[in-house]
Amino acid sequence: MHILSADQFTKKQLEELFTLTDSIKSQFLTDKNKLLKKHEGKVLITLFYEPSTRTRLSFATAAAHMGMSVISTENAREFSSAAKGETIEDTARVLEQYYPDAIVIRHHETGEVARAAAVTKVPIINAGDGKGEHPTQSLLDMYTIWDSHKKHSGLKVVLGGDLLHGRTARSLAKLLTCFDGNHIVFNTIPELQMADDIKEYLDGRGVTYEEEPDMKRAFQNADVVYWTRLQKERLPAGVHIDQTYKIDKKAMSYLPETAIVMHPLPRVDEILTEVDDDPRAKYFDQAGNGMFVRMALLDTILK
Amino acid sequence: MHILSADQFTKKQLEELFTLTDSIKSQFLTDKNKLLKKHEGKVLITLFYEPSTRTRLSFATAAAHMGMSVISTENAREFSSAAKGETIEDTARVLEQYYPDAIVIRHHETGEVARAAAVTKVPIINAGDGKGEHPTQSLLDMYTIWDSHKKHSGLKVVLGGDLLHGRTARSLAKLLTCFDGNHIVFNTIPELQMADDIKEYLDGRGVTYEEEPDMKRAFQNADVVYWTRLQKERLPAGVHIDQTYKIDKKAMSYLPETAIVMHPLPRVDEILTEVDDDPRAKYFDQAGNGMFVRMALLDTILK
Amino acid sequence: MHILSADQFTKKQLEELFTLTDSIKSQFLTDKNKLLKKHEGKVLITLFYEPSTRTRLSFATAAAHMGMSVISTENAREFSSAAKGETIEDTARVLEQYYPDAIVIRHHETGEVARAAAVTKVPIINAGDGKGEHPTQSLLDMYTIWDSHKKHSGLKVVLGGDLLHGRTARSLAKLLTCFDGNHIVFNTIPELQMADDIKEYLDGRGVTYEEEPDMKRAFQNADVVYWTRLQKERLPAGVHIDQTYKIDKKAMSYLPETAIVMHPLPRVDEILTEVDDDPRAKYFDQAGNGMFVRMALLDTILK
Repeated sequence: MHILSADQFTKKQLEELFTLTDSIKSQFLTDKNKLLKKHEGKVLITLFYEPSTRTRLSFATAAAHMGMSVISTENAREFSSAAKGETIEDTARVLEQYYPDAIVIRHHETGEVARAAAVTKVPIINAGDGKGEHPTQSLLDMYTIWDSHKKHSGLKVVLGGDLLHGRTARSLAKLLTCFDGNHIVFNTIPELQMADDIKEYLDGRGVTYEEEPDMKRAFQNADVVYWTRLQKERLPAGVHIDQTYKIDKKAMSYLPETAIVMHPLPRVDEILTEVDDDPRAKYFDQAGNGMFVRMALLDTILK
Repeated sequence: MHILSADQFTKKQLEELFTLTDSIKSQFLTDKNKLLKKHEGKVLITLFYEPSTRTRLSFATAAAHMGMSVISTENAREFSSAAKGETIEDTARVLEQYYPDAIVIRHHETGEVARAAAVTKVPIINAGDGKGEHPTQSLLDMYTIWDSHKKHSGLKVVLGGDLLHGRTARSLAKLLTCFDGNHIVFNTIPELQMADDIKEYLDGRGVTYEEEPDMKRAFQNADVVYWTRLQKERLPAGVHIDQTYKIDKKAMSYLPETAIVMHPLPRVDEILTEVDDDPRAKYFDQAGNGMFVRMALLDTILK
Repeated sequence: MHILSADQFTKKQLEELFTLTDSIKSQFLTDKNKLLKKHEGKVLITLFYEPSTRTRLSFATAAAHMGMSVISTENAREFSSAAKGETIEDTARVLEQYYPDAIVIRHHETGEVARAAAVTKVPIINAGDGKGEHPTQSLLDMYTIWDSHKKHSGLKVVLGGDLLHGRTARSLAKLLTCFDGNHIVFNTIPELQMADDIKEYLDGRGVTYEEEPDMKRAFQNADVVYWTRLQKERLPAGVHIDQTYKIDKKAMSYLPETAIVMHPLPRVDEILTEVDDDPRAKYFDQAGNGMFVRMALLDTILK
């Protein structure tokens, strides 16, 4: 079983995955040592064609906490046979011969990870392929909502920041359609608004959404605020970053007590550090959930 | 005991190594868990002064499958004390103080690995030193022949591709002289023909050989075809890569059913992918044998 | 408990650390396997924002010898979220969520490691922060003196080489003030003499010192010679490296039989290799002591 796209999961499979994540997380926090025996001696290869330290370390620690050995390459693009013109299919078929129990691949080009998966029986996990998929990010985002609200339906979810270019907000919007009665609010400047393909996807799946440029109105009664990083170089000419929305203490005051604030990280200054101690700020827990979701995914494919 | 050159092995030692590889491979494929206890807790350092992801991962997984911890550096040349003018002897003497159980070294300069080995009691394995030796490659090549034919003598072995520059074909030719009655056929264009030093070496050891530019005649009754990568930049002016030999389905039809086709990989297009599913295509198994031979070598030096 | 600076240790704590190092070293050299169970399954992250292969491998092997898993990044500066403008506080808070048992950080900027430590409960070890601290180096230097002389007081310690720029000699001078009756001799050319801030520090702590440009007189009755690397580019204009002091066999003849010669390594030619076999040459043992001191530090913070 390969993990190539968040789309590959049915609602039932997502619920099973999140239930398994709950169970692994709780076991880890109460008795780590038992987990260490779970996949003792199994071998994970992390093959990164472009750097993503956070994602790599998250997978590596997830594996190590379950007793696996981790063999890593940080910059396969420069270092590997790829520089000599080897296809990723050949690379995958060679690595398969080393009998790893799973391979995590990060690639700079869309579709390459799926190509690797197509030729090998070793479970492949896509850790991001260019502008393509990054399923474990979407899954950890969705899991964090489940983890906080103990449900994944009937939620008001505000998406903010750079909705036009940001892969994570787009993926989360799609994943929200797996569950019933969610309502999405796009809260950003017009120049960074969510693209039509996602809106059409939501239309087709019966998920309601609105564009609400006013932060106060957007945040009212929200269950989830999902904020994303703005890159200066992606702002339209004439738009200064200070003209976009930032989450500060005042913005937090618009939110209900039960809301959560998420961010895929790294953040720069679109969420001020003054917010970090607010119990609704869940972006660091979200990173931790990433590790637990990856443990659950590894556990699933290693069975 | 250091592993510095394929030349250091007698015929008897090679046979012992291959028998041990057979045994480890069979044990791994039937009961991995036993092997995991074999060298549990021992520490392997892989010190790579130039990148070679394939070789590094092969050693690292070999070690991990026997329960070892692997400590790696991917680019010692740029990162290490070498940049500050430290000799490899000093580096080896420092690493020795960290009590690793073995050190695998890849270096961009010939002779450096042997210099490291000369000053330390920690077993050193040469994973390639510039234009010098790459003993584990030669050994895995020879093992693959043994593994497929259950013998290493009396074989007709065709060497093709870039015989002039390719280290692997040169090394295999030398290693074939350890056994009786092998006959070598050089099948390439005149500009990439095997150099005289190897021919003289074969003469001195009583191994017969011929140059046969015709692929069909070369492949007739062959037991082994060992093909190597052509690099455009090494072709003589005026020679196009399409004028050299490629192995396609037609070429395969010249070969006996019992022949095997090997390649050290990565390949570009000197063997077409249409050949991959042919049972005689052994280049991926060959990569896997590399891991098993490395397990056997580690097992030998750790005793 | 974080390890941020050698200054954080009292005399009593240093003695406890060195006693623990003695005990771990002796246990390792007699029965490695017991140590392997000590921190089995715990996870160490080594986060290096600049390369320092020696230090990284020393920590990694220290951890591996006690059964820990090591997750590494060799060049976090280039690879990590830092490139996207993430603060080290955010990075530390994210890594904390992966539940490592300790994090070793090397950073190119002074103070960054302490900033990371300020926001996390995971034990942080400073493996060097720019021109700031490198506590494990100072501790291993001091431990090597203790290990050889079975005392740390009443010693005549010669510091030589580049005392002006060298961080290690400066730190050792400071650490020597923790113990009674040590006398320091600065033996170098005027242009590379120890800076006034350290002399004032020694004055304030009642440690005596002198500048003695003559090597023979400096070495007379010395207990310890601590030599450091000269970098050509740091020599003043007009001063050639051969006009500085080198330790050769003749220089060794000035030293008592009981003296020891130390160097933080890498050395270039300020200590000739002809000295390496002299039993007083302790620079390689010193590197090994580095690993044992790091084992003791890890053991201390993991309790």
